[in-house]
Amino acid sequence: MHGARPTIGDVAHAAGVSKGTVSLAYSGKRPVAEETRRRIFAAAETLRWTASSSAQALATSRTSTIGLVIARRPEIIATDTFFPRFIAGCEAVLAEAGMGLMLNVVADEDAETAAYERFAAGRVDGVILLDVEQGDRRPNLVRELGLTAVMLSAEPPHENDPVGTPVVYTEDAAAVGELVELLIEAGHSRIAHVSGPLRYVHAVARRDAFAAAMTRHGLLPDRIVEGDFTAASGRDATAALLDGDDRPTAIVYANDVMAIAGLSYARSSGLRIPEDLSVTGFDDSELSAHLSPGLTSVSTGADVRGAVAARTLLAALGGDARRSVLVDGTVVVRRGSIAPPSRP
Amino acid sequence: MHGARPTIGDVAHAAGVSKGTVSLAYSGKRPVAEETRRRIFAAAETLRWTASSSAQALATSRTSTIGLVIARRPEIIATDTFFPRFIAGCEAVLAEAGMGLMLNVVADEDAETAAYERFAAGRVDGVILLDVEQGDRRPNLVRELGLTAVMLSAEPPHENDPVGTPVVYTEDAAAVGELVELLIEAGHSRIAHVSGPLRYVHAVARRDAFAAAMTRHGLLPDRIVEGDFTAASGRDATAALLDGDDRPTAIVYANDVMAIAGLSYARSSGLRIPEDLSVTGFDDSELSAHLSPGLTSVSTGADVRGAVAARTLLAALGGDARRSVLVDGTVVVRRGSIAPPSRP
Repeated sequence: MHGARPTIGDVAHAAGVSKGTVSLAYSGKRPVAEETRRRIFAAAETLRWTASSSAQALATSRTSTIGLVIARRPEIIATDTFFPRFIAGCEAVLAEAGMGLMLNVVADEDAETAAYERFAAGRVDGVILLDVEQGDRRPNLVRELGLTAVMLSAEPPHENDPVGTPVVYTEDAAAVGELVELLIEAGHSRIAHVSGPLRYVHAVARRDAFAAAMTRHGLLPDRIVEGDFTAASGRDATAALLDGDDRPTAIVYANDVMAIAGLSYARSSGLRIPEDLSVTGFDDSELSAHLSPGLTSVSTGADVRGAVAARTLLAALGGDARRSVLVDGTVVVRRGSIAPPSRP
Repeated sequence: MHGARPTIGDVAHAAGVSKGTVSLAYSGKRPVAEETRRRIFAAAETLRWTASSSAQALATSRTSTIGLVIARRPEIIATDTFFPRFIAGCEAVLAEAGMGLMLNVVADEDAETAAYERFAAGRVDGVILLDVEQGDRRPNLVRELGLTAVMLSAEPPHENDPVGTPVVYTEDAAAVGELVELLIEAGHSRIAHVSGPLRYVHAVARRDAFAAAMTRHGLLPDRIVEGDFTAASGRDATAALLDGDDRPTAIVYANDVMAIAGLSYARSSGLRIPEDLSVTGFDDSELSAHLSPGLTSVSTGADVRGAVAARTLLAALGGDARRSVLVDGTVVVRRGSIAPPSRP
């Protein structure tokens, strides 16, 4: 057993029952004698096998499918490096469990509701909720539809959340604080932030981390412009920030696409990167590493998040609903786009 | 009826039968009296209703799901604007038909085969094949697995193709010829091409269109470097092309990401864009429009292709297997990245 992962078969063997009985003991689909149940649980504990394993989820699954609804415009998904990596991470776990991923890309809230309704009509067993908003309506919606859900968020679950959806959360906003520290160390004080859409919890978390780091160093976080993750908004926000005498010497963008459009605009206005303007991104797209200079960014381990979210959902489907899981894997990737300011 | 699309209900009403009978007449699942069948077909023809409608596909569908396997590395999908738009186009058609999309992102050929096998095990009715390769093994594979398939390609089906998979094809390579014309008109003669991976039919089609346009104007197409659609390959190919005295004054890239990494490299080597180097991309990502200068690119109507591919697959599932469909919607989008050469 040493080194190999225990299987449902190992537990069945140790407890002297069939695999089906082990499955029933955990799923509660049909009653199992109390004495048998206790023997199975003891064997599982000895072997360190948990009901959260894929096999268990599969045993209680009706459709062998989980669902993902992405409610962003296709052109934004197209330039956002997060989703494909997240999906690939999910699928690695799902494939191992013999399960599939049903994807829906929707344009508005009505289409989003319709997608969850179709899912609930016997198409998937559970869903992963992304891009959590303040006062998000979806946890309630999917619960009413009878779908098991897991939420990916930038903050731990609220104490008084009435729905109680399991949350896979990250603390990646802390990386924004690190970026501000790097810039201050390099000599910057006029540092601006171009945020994501502030209806998203993650965008607010990143903006707050920016403001907190500035304040810690006695700097006013008064150069904040809200973007929407598109290149267009990155360019427009940069134009607004650079217009005027007291322009920033560094800009912290909430994603790479806005940063790349912003630095392109700055260059076309005659500024050198990084001598006249330092810039940083977020999400670490493949393009960022191969620009000249490379774009300092934050690698968020989107594939790891996908894998953990899928595993947490499979566990919840198997009856093991953990309340929250912290995923860590956020790393600041420093490249040539940060330099001391030419006129501090 | 004028202006409104006919439904299966209209046909049933006109033929004096139930919708189920219309469905059976087309699907052949159970026999329908010859006289009834003829009446139904006549009504359908009068009303211009075809068996390729969504209703028909749904009537013969077992899973209400179609499948899509994308065999590219997640970081390449992440920077490729094509897939999310294509998927959104598919889903618009599928949602209308009450059908869903099962997505698989796979890393290698074994995982790809396994994905199609899972699909065939009752998970989906049909599949759309993307990124067609020379001598592609998948049409045979999915036929053996019993899956209905539609292929998206850059060329019409071969006369002697033994499998006979319906092909939705585009002639977007012609746009590469147009780009070369634009550059020659602007005064360029030393024009280079950074292609996609030449195992793909579409990459070969674009390279051939480049070479043909050069040859038409008496220019040698001798500056061609194969890339792999990543930013890294775009940068490396550009470095190789710009190394030496007889460097090109213009580069035609097979996608936007390679073009953006390439122009960033060129700028960092002291070249001005577009004065010293004109560049063009392909696929027209959101970022390209908001760079300074904007990147001249080719809009391929990926969403329209997705919609047509889905509609063609639904038709095939409904028994109406057209041999090929041409999708047109490719447009050269001219922006500031083309200028006359500074030293012709």
